[in-house]
Amino acid sequence: MGAPPKLYLAGPEVFLPNALDIGRRKQELCAEYGFEGLFPFDNEVDPGAQGEAIDRLIYRANIAMLRAVDGGIFNLTPFRGPSADAGTIFELGFMMALGKPAFGYTNDRASYLERAKGSGAVFDAGKAQWSDTAGRRIENFEAIDNLMIAQALGDQGSDHLVRPAGGSPHLPLDDLAGFRACLDRARRFFGLVG
Amino acid sequence: MGAPPKLYLAGPEVFLPNALDIGRRKQELCAEYGFEGLFPFDNEVDPGAQGEAIDRLIYRANIAMLRAVDGGIFNLTPFRGPSADAGTIFELGFMMALGKPAFGYTNDRASYLERAKGSGAVFDAGKAQWSDTAGRRIENFEAIDNLMIAQALGDQGSDHLVRPAGGSPHLPLDDLAGFRACLDRARRFFGLVG
Repeated sequence: MGAPPKLYLAGPEVFLPNALDIGRRKQELCAEYGFEGLFPFDNEVDPGAQGEAIDRLIYRANIAMLRAVDGGIFNLTPFRGPSADAGTIFELGFMMALGKPAFGYTNDRASYLERAKGSGAVFDAGKAQWSDTAGRRIENFEAIDNLMIAQALGDQGSDHLVRPAGGSPHLPLDDLAGFRACLDRARRFFGLVG
Repeated sequence: MGAPPKLYLAGPEVFLPNALDIGRRKQELCAEYGFEGLFPFDNEVDPGAQGEAIDRLIYRANIAMLRAVDGGIFNLTPFRGPSADAGTIFELGFMMALGKPAFGYTNDRASYLERAKGSGAVFDAGKAQWSDTAGRRIENFEAIDNLMIAQALGDQGSDHLVRPAGGSPHLPLDDLAGFRACLDRARRFFGLVG
């Protein structure tokens, strides 16, 4: 048997107080499913040693990881607004351009439209179109986020995106059911099950 | 003289009621600076003809454009939250992985931290760290957005990001001063000035 495939574990959990614990738990789950999980926090960044700003070093370290891995799992749960975390979205775009397999999950079943409507919205019956209170169109594809995010995964395969079932529409940001479901699908994708 | 370099024009203006006008104006400015501007709206999408969902077709058309261009200009003005538009961020990540030159501007001078603090925040003096009211850390690099976005441009060159001057800190989403500044820098980057 060769080395386990490497997965980049993207998501806004890095901003939680227990980020290290969550990273460790995700890596344990990866191992259970036959993968090696790489969490952004794995990077030891020593700004003093290199004379560069710490944000530049973290950027470069994450980019190097994205180039090194075989695929990724992206936590696309909304973060500080109706869309997923900005850093996670950037990394999804980066990985798509590299043509690597990506699996994503969200812990919020609602569509982007439903969330954006929460801040106030107007329906134009003539155009069959929703706009926000500033008059800006709200996409209405029943999707979890902006079409570029939803379709990036959908274009790779109909099972590349995990959305909660109707019974538990709003799970916490750090719930791992969707992550496990992604691992299960990734395991089949990489041929790790007999 | 060869064909003018092609620039992808990313930004949330596609959601404005006058999206087509703005796209046309941006393309005129591109021509003035020696470029050909490609605006997502340029794509004629005919879902009936191909039997695919329109969001899938738009995704593929934009991806094809990102692969075809020589570089891009990204409107990173905050959109429905403290971060830039999700689609624009995805496209920036995609272009970075392709190693193409990108120039970005924001029409809001404030830092990500300043915007995120607006929804309520707590300072931990011991850790010298801000958190939102849900206890999630807020990045504090004085940057315009999540570090992956700001550093993607910064890593290409210190002049790849345009931020408004102190005198006019909050310009409208569709203001084009930053766009012009990006064109000027791109023109030098591509050697289009003598």
